[in-house]
Amino acid sequence: MSAKRGRIPKITIERLSVYLQVLEQIQREGVAVVSSGPLAEACRVNASQLRKDLTYFGEFGIRGVGYNVDELINAVSRSLGIDREWNCVLIGVGNLGKAIIGQREFVRRGFRIIGAFDCDPFKIGEAFAGLEVVCTRHLKDRIRDKNVRIGVITTPPEHAQRVADYLVGAGIKGILNYAPMRITVPPDVTVEYVDIFHHLYSLAYDLALRQD
Amino acid sequence: MSAKRGRIPKITIERLSVYLQVLEQIQREGVAVVSSGPLAEACRVNASQLRKDLTYFGEFGIRGVGYNVDELINAVSRSLGIDREWNCVLIGVGNLGKAIIGQREFVRRGFRIIGAFDCDPFKIGEAFAGLEVVCTRHLKDRIRDKNVRIGVITTPPEHAQRVADYLVGAGIKGILNYAPMRITVPPDVTVEYVDIFHHLYSLAYDLALRQD
Repeated sequence: MSAKRGRIPKITIERLSVYLQVLEQIQREGVAVVSSGPLAEACRVNASQLRKDLTYFGEFGIRGVGYNVDELINAVSRSLGIDREWNCVLIGVGNLGKAIIGQREFVRRGFRIIGAFDCDPFKIGEAFAGLEVVCTRHLKDRIRDKNVRIGVITTPPEHAQRVADYLVGAGIKGILNYAPMRITVPPDVTVEYVDIFHHLYSLAYDLALRQD
Repeated sequence: MSAKRGRIPKITIERLSVYLQVLEQIQREGVAVVSSGPLAEACRVNASQLRKDLTYFGEFGIRGVGYNVDELINAVSRSLGIDREWNCVLIGVGNLGKAIIGQREFVRRGFRIIGAFDCDPFKIGEAFAGLEVVCTRHLKDRIRDKNVRIGVITTPPEHAQRVADYLVGAGIKGILNYAPMRITVPPDVTVEYVDIFHHLYSLAYDLALRQD
């Protein structure tokens, strides 16, 4: 099995995330082998797109038979770097922050939130899902030697940049930003923006087209 | 001003969402006119991509001068159908549901959650941000004549399909699904999936490449 060389584009990773979700659904149903047609249909992509995307992971498909579900899940996970655990911290313990801290899916997929931070004196010292909320000023000290690689920002937009600066100062190179605000970071830091509004805009656009 | 005809692709809407966010940031700073170079840089796209995307909204750019910020915001909003209000309901009042109900950004962008539903008898009757939680079985009755167009699913994955069926049965044509589960709906219903894991996978992939 020889994996195709080259960096996986972001747009492909977005589809791989869907494939993984669907493959895990299929796996739970006890299916061992799936061919590209039904898999593509369940993922709502066309089959040639799916086959092309999966070439990043070597030669899995056996013509006329299909993909081994377990093997494919493992190969995709390994290639994406999610076959290991990633320690994360979260900053901003509002409802959204609490929802994320409590989400079992995060841990199940290897993303372990090991610290929760907030500036609000009424939240500091409280505990959620076993995590004590610590003042954001202590971020750097608290995560020293803990191999934290990812910081999740769930603060209001006006605090996002300051929090990003704290994360960068603590040596974190990957940021997941839920705050609806663009942030500026050094070139060696990667930011992913969770922008749910483009989904709502897509829906509104679609519904408006029918209405007008 | 003649708007380019044709349907705006989803990938363009994703970028438009970023442009809007950045334009609103610029507007708050009191800037009236912006040229494509700095705007593109703030949006982290290249300038020719930005200029191309904005042709959907007619001839805004004045060569050598730039885009009028207010006009551009209005034109993009109008084209996307977010210059009006969209009534939404939310099903699944856990931490994530509460975070969404309480998010001012939703209302500010024209998405008004007018009903909150949950099957949990311990939640029914409770109120969040002025919304009383109602049993999901009453969805159809409760939203009759209220012009609800969008349903937001924030339940655990195992309940997502049943909730989608309720929404479809109540005549809703647009679904925003936060549950990490694919759902099946009739062809005249649009589903948008909020999948935050592909963002985490992108970060993990990026960080793993540096580590390996």
